[in-house]
Amino acid sequence: MDIPTFDNIKSAYMLIHEHVHRTPVLTSSALNEMAECSLFFKCENFQKTGSFKFRGATNAVLSLSGSGSEKGVATHSSGNHAAALALAAKKQGLRSFIVMPRSSPFNKVAAVRSYGGDITFCDNNLVSREETLERVIKETGATFVHPYDNFNVVCGQGTAAMELLEDHPDMEALFVPVGGGGVLSGSAVSAKALTPGIKVYGCEPENADDAYRSFTQGDIVPSVNPSTIADGLRTSLSQLTFRIISKYADDIFTVSEQEIIDAMRLIWERMKVVTEPSSAVALAAVLKHPEAVKGKTAGIILTGGNADLLNLPFDRG
Amino acid sequence: MDIPTFDNIKSAYMLIHEHVHRTPVLTSSALNEMAECSLFFKCENFQKTGSFKFRGATNAVLSLSGSGSEKGVATHSSGNHAAALALAAKKQGLRSFIVMPRSSPFNKVAAVRSYGGDITFCDNNLVSREETLERVIKETGATFVHPYDNFNVVCGQGTAAMELLEDHPDMEALFVPVGGGGVLSGSAVSAKALTPGIKVYGCEPENADDAYRSFTQGDIVPSVNPSTIADGLRTSLSQLTFRIISKYADDIFTVSEQEIIDAMRLIWERMKVVTEPSSAVALAAVLKHPEAVKGKTAGIILTGGNADLLNLPFDRG
Repeated sequence: MDIPTFDNIKSAYMLIHEHVHRTPVLTSSALNEMAECSLFFKCENFQKTGSFKFRGATNAVLSLSGSGSEKGVATHSSGNHAAALALAAKKQGLRSFIVMPRSSPFNKVAAVRSYGGDITFCDNNLVSREETLERVIKETGATFVHPYDNFNVVCGQGTAAMELLEDHPDMEALFVPVGGGGVLSGSAVSAKALTPGIKVYGCEPENADDAYRSFTQGDIVPSVNPSTIADGLRTSLSQLTFRIISKYADDIFTVSEQEIIDAMRLIWERMKVVTEPSSAVALAAVLKHPEAVKGKTAGIILTGGNADLLNLPFDRG
Repeated sequence: MDIPTFDNIKSAYMLIHEHVHRTPVLTSSALNEMAECSLFFKCENFQKTGSFKFRGATNAVLSLSGSGSEKGVATHSSGNHAAALALAAKKQGLRSFIVMPRSSPFNKVAAVRSYGGDITFCDNNLVSREETLERVIKETGATFVHPYDNFNVVCGQGTAAMELLEDHPDMEALFVPVGGGGVLSGSAVSAKALTPGIKVYGCEPENADDAYRSFTQGDIVPSVNPSTIADGLRTSLSQLTFRIISKYADDIFTVSEQEIIDAMRLIWERMKVVTEPSSAVALAAVLKHPEAVKGKTAGIILTGGNADLLNLPFDRG
């Protein structure tokens, strides 16, 4: 698979921009004071289906047209890609078949259902996910849209950073959460093309630090059953995203579970914005690495807002 | 006290606009579908100090300059006006003296402290609030800034609806929460001046329905120890706000506690926006009164976002 160029991301933007929100960019003087820099939050939690995943899923679905897509699309995902693909398919009049682990968060299963996704549950491991998906595809003839090891998905995800840097072309650093690496890959391609001097940092839970280890060791080192509150970041890099990140990212920062929770609470309390734990990982990295941001302008991709309101991690502490 | 005109509100805007955020207006296709209308949410929860109250407090403080304000400002408030006045004073280098009931929410006391407010606690009733404030003013010489029975405060609050209707001049209805009536009064003056045909509705908890009763009976009927989750709406109309609301509001809608909680949850889950219960009262009224909105464009003032994250009302139900 080729690595996407910025031209590919611009083409994705032309294809999807009438279907996705151009999400607002928010600032917070309290957080600027705390981090001693100027932060710009690209609010993909306000994106349709509540995360940036709708960009990549929409680009993938629209790029399929006329190539056997009439049998629908399929994927395995415990969360935001599942909901995004279900809605992107529904909007094109296509069916979607979603394999979800039985342990998937309640609210994310409900979201997929509400967008008409046809759910098949599987066991909570990668082998079961892949076997179940293979069976579903065999039965339905649907086209597999991988959550991030997919050229068109990565191009779609890159349009969020593209919009942010069009609005703020003088950005000096960009912080992006990394799980499977789709949004970090796409963001890095956009950022280095639009603002060549910019530093691009991947941000990852210590407890799921495969991107950090892969990046520093120069070879893919998958996470094995990682345990982190950032449920969107438990996946490991793919060949495609590893190659893009190795080429374009400047560093990967890791943060602890408590740092993620503290950053999430700051976003809710100070910015009044509902974000899921995976989104808070980028602000946690900013606060942990003043040397990378002090006195600078920095962008943060707030990747999603699908938090489970009945199971929040805040306490009096 | 005279009733403010729209010219007074425009003057307030000229005075405060460099000090306050022009807050964004958000939309939600899910909520539009549910309410069968086009809703525009003016997000004052993103305002400095987390509520529209910063507009009125800033206008009051800036209007005081050179008239004995050097001894600071004082008020009694359990919540958002307290924090707003403390920050508005601090930004002008003035002291603020805030009388708060001992039962005030934890997060709101912390906010006043963080803005340098000098807090005196009192008992949880109006007599104690007023007596304590009188003593504080006697001791300090500070100027009283009432939360809503104050001309400059009402003018400042009216700038939120003014901004909303400048952006969307074709609005057909406007829904505004009503407690003491400051933001409903200011909003009604702005709305009727900018969009003469617009309907302006006050929205109130059934459990604190003094505005409804006052409006329908034509005379002020205060609430006595109202019990509602919408802690910002427990206050009763003043002479000033009653006169404005009687003149300009088209109706007052009341909603139950469960309707408030359900609407708050919709805002958090669907819009990914942190709002306090008082803010949700307007959406609850929209959903309860389809006859007032069906097929129309309607504005909602999301008044504040200072929810206590450790004490949320959501359950599995």
